[in-house]
Amino acid sequence: MSRFIKKRSKKVGLPPGTLVSLGEEKAEKVKISLIDYDEANFEEKKIKGVEECFPFKNKPTVTWINIDGVHDIEVIEKVGNHFGLHPLTLENILNTEQRPKIEDFDDYIFIVLKMLYHDEKEGEIQTEQVSLILGSNFVISFQEREGDVFNPVRERIRTGKGRIRKMGADYLTYALIDTIVDSYFIIPEKLGEKIEAMEEELVANPTPGTLQTIHTLKREMIFLRKSVWPLREVVSGLQRTESTLIHESTDIYLRDVYDHTIQVIDTIETSRDILSGMLDIYLSSISNKMNQVMKVLTIIATIFIPLTFIAGIYGMNFKYMPELEWFWAYPLILGTMIVIGILMLVYFRRKKWL
Amino acid sequence: MSRFIKKRSKKVGLPPGTLVSLGEEKAEKVKISLIDYDEANFEEKKIKGVEECFPFKNKPTVTWINIDGVHDIEVIEKVGNHFGLHPLTLENILNTEQRPKIEDFDDYIFIVLKMLYHDEKEGEIQTEQVSLILGSNFVISFQEREGDVFNPVRERIRTGKGRIRKMGADYLTYALIDTIVDSYFIIPEKLGEKIEAMEEELVANPTPGTLQTIHTLKREMIFLRKSVWPLREVVSGLQRTESTLIHESTDIYLRDVYDHTIQVIDTIETSRDILSGMLDIYLSSISNKMNQVMKVLTIIATIFIPLTFIAGIYGMNFKYMPELEWFWAYPLILGTMIVIGILMLVYFRRKKWL
Amino acid sequence: MSRFIKKRSKKVGLPPGTLVSLGEEKAEKVKISLIDYDEANFEEKKIKGVEECFPFKNKPTVTWINIDGVHDIEVIEKVGNHFGLHPLTLENILNTEQRPKIEDFDDYIFIVLKMLYHDEKEGEIQTEQVSLILGSNFVISFQEREGDVFNPVRERIRTGKGRIRKMGADYLTYALIDTIVDSYFIIPEKLGEKIEAMEEELVANPTPGTLQTIHTLKREMIFLRKSVWPLREVVSGLQRTESTLIHESTDIYLRDVYDHTIQVIDTIETSRDILSGMLDIYLSSISNKMNQVMKVLTIIATIFIPLTFIAGIYGMNFKYMPELEWFWAYPLILGTMIVIGILMLVYFRRKKWL
Amino acid sequence: MSRFIKKRSKKVGLPPGTLVSLGEEKAEKVKISLIDYDEANFEEKKIKGVEECFPFKNKPTVTWINIDGVHDIEVIEKVGNHFGLHPLTLENILNTEQRPKIEDFDDYIFIVLKMLYHDEKEGEIQTEQVSLILGSNFVISFQEREGDVFNPVRERIRTGKGRIRKMGADYLTYALIDTIVDSYFIIPEKLGEKIEAMEEELVANPTPGTLQTIHTLKREMIFLRKSVWPLREVVSGLQRTESTLIHESTDIYLRDVYDHTIQVIDTIETSRDILSGMLDIYLSSISNKMNQVMKVLTIIATIFIPLTFIAGIYGMNFKYMPELEWFWAYPLILGTMIVIGILMLVYFRRKKWL
Amino acid sequence: MSRFIKKRSKKVGLPPGTLVSLGEEKAEKVKISLIDYDEANFEEKKIKGVEECFPFKNKPTVTWINIDGVHDIEVIEKVGNHFGLHPLTLENILNTEQRPKIEDFDDYIFIVLKMLYHDEKEGEIQTEQVSLILGSNFVISFQEREGDVFNPVRERIRTGKGRIRKMGADYLTYALIDTIVDSYFIIPEKLGEKIEAMEEELVANPTPGTLQTIHTLKREMIFLRKSVWPLREVVSGLQRTESTLIHESTDIYLRDVYDHTIQVIDTIETSRDILSGMLDIYLSSISNKMNQVMKVLTIIATIFIPLTFIAGIYGMNFKYMPELEWFWAYPLILGTMIVIGILMLVYFRRKKWL
Repeated sequence: MSRFIKKRSKKVGLPPGTLVSLGEEKAEKVKISLIDYDEANFEEKKIKGVEECFPFKNKPTVTWINIDGVHDIEVIEKVGNHFGLHPLTLENILNTEQRPKIEDFDDYIFIVLKMLYHDEKEGEIQTEQVSLILGSNFVISFQEREGDVFNPVRERIRTGKGRIRKMGADYLTYALIDTIVDSYFIIPEKLGEKIEAMEEELVANPTPGTLQTIHTLKREMIFLRKSVWPLREVVSGLQRTESTLIHESTDIYLRDVYDHTIQVIDTIETSRDILSGMLDIYLSSISNKMNQVMKVLTIIATIFIPLTFIAGIYGMNFKYMPELEWFWAYPLILGTMIVIGILMLVYFRRKKWL
Repeated sequence: MSRFIKKRSKKVGLPPGTLVSLGEEKAEKVKISLIDYDEANFEEKKIKGVEECFPFKNKPTVTWINIDGVHDIEVIEKVGNHFGLHPLTLENILNTEQRPKIEDFDDYIFIVLKMLYHDEKEGEIQTEQVSLILGSNFVISFQEREGDVFNPVRERIRTGKGRIRKMGADYLTYALIDTIVDSYFIIPEKLGEKIEAMEEELVANPTPGTLQTIHTLKREMIFLRKSVWPLREVVSGLQRTESTLIHESTDIYLRDVYDHTIQVIDTIETSRDILSGMLDIYLSSISNKMNQVMKVLTIIATIFIPLTFIAGIYGMNFKYMPELEWFWAYPLILGTMIVIGILMLVYFRRKKWL
Repeated sequence: MSRFIKKRSKKVGLPPGTLVSLGEEKAEKVKISLIDYDEANFEEKKIKGVEECFPFKNKPTVTWINIDGVHDIEVIEKVGNHFGLHPLTLENILNTEQRPKIEDFDDYIFIVLKMLYHDEKEGEIQTEQVSLILGSNFVISFQEREGDVFNPVRERIRTGKGRIRKMGADYLTYALIDTIVDSYFIIPEKLGEKIEAMEEELVANPTPGTLQTIHTLKREMIFLRKSVWPLREVVSGLQRTESTLIHESTDIYLRDVYDHTIQVIDTIETSRDILSGMLDIYLSSISNKMNQVMKVLTIIATIFIPLTFIAGIYGMNFKYMPELEWFWAYPLILGTMIVIGILMLVYFRRKKWL
Repeated sequence: MSRFIKKRSKKVGLPPGTLVSLGEEKAEKVKISLIDYDEANFEEKKIKGVEECFPFKNKPTVTWINIDGVHDIEVIEKVGNHFGLHPLTLENILNTEQRPKIEDFDDYIFIVLKMLYHDEKEGEIQTEQVSLILGSNFVISFQEREGDVFNPVRERIRTGKGRIRKMGADYLTYALIDTIVDSYFIIPEKLGEKIEAMEEELVANPTPGTLQTIHTLKREMIFLRKSVWPLREVVSGLQRTESTLIHESTDIYLRDVYDHTIQVIDTIETSRDILSGMLDIYLSSISNKMNQVMKVLTIIATIFIPLTFIAGIYGMNFKYMPELEWFWAYPLILGTMIVIGILMLVYFRRKKWL
Repeated sequence: MSRFIKKRSKKVGLPPGTLVSLGEEKAEKVKISLIDYDEANFEEKKIKGVEECFPFKNKPTVTWINIDGVHDIEVIEKVGNHFGLHPLTLENILNTEQRPKIEDFDDYIFIVLKMLYHDEKEGEIQTEQVSLILGSNFVISFQEREGDVFNPVRERIRTGKGRIRKMGADYLTYALIDTIVDSYFIIPEKLGEKIEAMEEELVANPTPGTLQTIHTLKREMIFLRKSVWPLREVVSGLQRTESTLIHESTDIYLRDVYDHTIQVIDTIETSRDILSGMLDIYLSSISNKMNQVMKVLTIIATIFIPLTFIAGIYGMNFKYMPELEWFWAYPLILGTMIVIGILMLVYFRRKKWL
């Protein structure tokens, strides 16, 4: 539950731009790494004090500052002041319950995204907020936790593989977004495997647990959907922006990310439809099984009740019951009962009740 | 019910602009407070007669007049006349059944909002209408009841915290709207807690009361939704307005409020989806429980009915029933019955009916 | 039914503009009343022959001609010819199955509306078509039946209350539409009272009649919705029209009517949602009641069936049944039966089946 | 089924513009009739060879060529060549599975419509494709079968009734479309009567046949809807076209047809809603009836099972059962049974189970 | 399942434009065929090495290169380099999980489509990705597998049938798309036949297998829908493109393809509606059948239970039961039982329970 409806109330009444971290309180130190490159040069370093980044602001090379952890307000504030970020931007970076969005300040573009990963232990989807600042020749990325999702990008910059070193900060931003969107594909695949596993269970042996699983998956889908839909707006917002920070040559790459986003959405919608169908199958297969049981049992009862009645008749103690004296009466009655039983069975068969 | 479909019929046939208070009749006096400030100066006073506010209209400082209570038509009328409000605006302020909306008169912008709070006693969401008038250098706010929701804003003005003292009346308006929207977050959280509590109940022990609660929550969601959706239009209306009363520097703050509104809507929609899923789980868990009962009971009956029939046979009083005379007949029949019973149990087990 | 799917087939194949009255045939004479006013002067008269209205066409004062009854084709035709109405307009006035709409002919604006009232006797919503012609300085209104819904407007003109006497024909048109929209509020209130009454019934004692009532209300809602949705388009059409017949000063009043229309729609949609929820509650409370009955009854049967079997055993007539001879056998068996019964009850209790 | 999913596969792989008739193969000769008129003159003739029409192409009078039957490819081709129709237009005329549509070629406007009629024998809605070519001063109409639906228009031209003789080819086109749309009103009326008839049946005596009927009607509605929705686009396409073939004076008539189309759609949507409601009523009234039966029967069984148990007790053959010897034992036991039966009945009554 | 949620994760983290084939690994060689034509000339050849195509790039004639198999990255890369395709285009061609889309690079238009065919063996719809490159005077088509779907187009070029030889590369592209869309019509027809077959089964003898079939068809429809909807955007994108690669004369043909696409969508939507209706019929016909069984059986039990009770009474062993001694007691009791049985039957009949 708590993942779906987040507490935001502790911010009520504070002036806008007040920096309050909504993420978990953490004791660890914020980790900052910096990569500075152009086609020819490449420099990478771990930063101790945030001030070490500042000189890179005005270098013509592309600078990527990655900050892991948004719980140290002071660090965020220093970065904000030096790189000219609006107080609301800083507030949004700290507030990890943001909806994915894009905001175009003239000097920089601010992008909020959600990173999704499937927590194997909990069997739940976890989210992490990633904020990106795209400036004229720098990109600042904020992650909630230290993670290795951006490692492939880092590797590409280091090795100069692909065209990343030849292009600007906007292409780097694209590469980071693309990495995040690509990681989205893993989630529906994971859920898809669960659906597939459950599907066989559904036919073989539906249990109330199956229902629970269907509903858990449905809820994961709702959650996934809520995270992915706004992403679509973010990417198309990036495409349509008139900001000079995005060069025309990057447009086609953004269109590609957009297509990927649509594909994720498509997959989610399809999964939702399939889950709905599975719910229907579950319900009617449960009810079918129940009906089968009830029908057979009722038929057994129905056959024996009239027979028991006949036995009851000849169990009566009337003095004058001539049949009781007959020699063949008992086998005759037994035979009659068997005939009645068989006739009823035949009738039920004919009516297709058996 | 009465919260959902409001009586509006007493206004039928009256000329537009006729001032009729639709709120509850109250005997209390209307309370008026005034705050006047610019970056350097600050003045706050309780107003006795509404006329005391009038001289502030033309001062270059920002003036915020807060009026608690809209049942005194005379007060509203005097304010309206002095500050040049259109008769329809006055009518709308008095009519507390307004839908949230924004209207741009050239001299002022008129905003109607709903304040929501969760009434602990009733367990229901209550609403109060808040009307805001944004003039060139004044803001007039009308509340139905005296409340302390605007206190944080007042405090910020008094202490000069944040940038509120440096900015104009439009920023004050934003701050008031932001306070209201922020207070919206409390409601879904409250409902979320209820949903969470019910969720455990649902698995452990579903009762008809659970159903009632689900439906009550669903209805609260309908109500909440009805209040929040138009809010979205109001805030985006404020953003898109071409009125000179809103300065460009306030735009980004309005965008922030807009994001918050979308987040509230998102949360409501998610809650609705979750509630629908819970309804499904409730229904099928109830029916599952019932099926379980019926199945076991029917099986017990089914096993004993044929056995009782056999007992019935040997209870018959025929004169010539050779078995009755046999020495081992009784234990044999008892044994046969036990075997039949066990065979049936085994059969039911195999069929997975038990 | 007949209210929902109207017969229109008698017009099939006729040339457009053919005047055929689709309303009920009536013998009564058409009633015409005329009010002519400006800020200073006021004249009101009952008209015998429709020709008496014609001289008012070119007077600079505002003239309001109200015609009760559209079954006299000749009258409509004369009016049409004199005031320059298009044949299709006349056809639309006569055809009382029109959808609410607005049409902007250059010389006049033609508006079709539906008046709704709740027929207490039938317990159904009845509709009446009202057509308005807004010319440069005249308004012609056509009603199907004589009614007093416009009386408040008439009274306002007579007494000069409000601003109606100071404004033009467009304001008069607004006032008439406003009166109609205001009367719409009464219907959902009426239906709301019914819903509220039924809600208590639903909890206390749901009957098949309750279901019938829910469905009748649902159908009334469908009907209401069908009448009110196009109204929205009509009013917003009036707002957006570029016709010079609507002065800018009337715009704000039209916006107000528009808000009211949205409010009516809101209320209808909310009622629909509530009714759907009630249907769900009804169905599951019926099924719950049934389950309760079946469960208790089945449990009673289940307890006695094994006991009857035991009694059946000792009712058998075998010659050699040693227990039968024992002195304590009978009380022992009785005791055993009681113990079995109690054990089963305890078991059912534990399983929460009771 | 076959009406809903049509075979189109025989065209797969053919070059576009290949003329293949998809309608039924017919041996009858295609019938062609021609009407030529202006305000003063009128000429009507049956055409033998299609070439007889050609001289009328360039006459200033309005020429209406009506072709009954589209199975003679040669005739269509000749007309196409002479009147300058695009090969795709010809293909569309022959392919009677077209969706209603409008296409604006510069020289002519091509309109495809569906004529609907209710086949009394089959109890099904049948469709026929009507294609219209509107040229500068001619209209060519293609029907699948000979029909008399256009007779009223023909009659109006012959007699000069209405304004049809005074206006151009666009007005004739309008008149033809109007005739078709007007004929649509008959279908929902027919279905409406069926619905009304079924409604009484539903309350009185719901049978599985009722369900079948509801579903048949629902399917007819789906079919109707599929035919009528694109019609709306066609008519609004005609209104919005910038083609000079449509004169401004015809616009208002097209608007009228548009309104009629909306009305048909409205009626269909309402009928759909009503049918859905009827399905709900049917299902719950069936289940209600079943519940009633089961409840009463179960109660009867429940009362007698304990009583039979008591009788079973005193049917046991224990040697030492003192009660059996008592003189009043039998009437006492009978009385006890009656009392138990009555108590159970009273209890069931109190619980409102009876 | 696996058809619905595809594995895409192996691309995660790779730089964009990295060529990785997502289709099945195949050992076969890629087959390339080339057709070069204008109105007068025609040349067709099987290509061994991809380099043989390169000289055709700059010839003024229309060149169509068809490549069967996208698993040989080297071939795709060479083609890409020579014809100036963007790396992302190449990536998209290789990635066979693309959504249908159109992308307008200035020099060429890139189109991704899905070919659908019904796999008779699996009873499932299979898809294949077809990518088209439309250059100024060449078309390159990529298919996943060798197929004969384009043969009719090839034949038309060879024989010069239709207008294909007279027109440019854009018309060839249209012809290819048209062929694909036409092949779509076969799928709903196939599914339609299945639906029709099942419909009779549904009325005659609904089994749980029927339900399974309905759900399988529903899922096929979801799958079909997912493939066809984006196709609509692709075709309308082609229509609306401002690229000079599409000549105006081709527009009308694209409009025709668009109409066909809409028709396929229409058919799918109708089938979905019909399937939903069939699900309802299935469920209520199953439950109806069950009810019938239960009702009759319960009634049999109900009649015999009271009769058995009476027999039980006279099976009691009380010493003083005067009736037992009466001479006519036995026939009287038998008669009473018969009367009671008949009365109950009559009562049940009257209540319409039988």
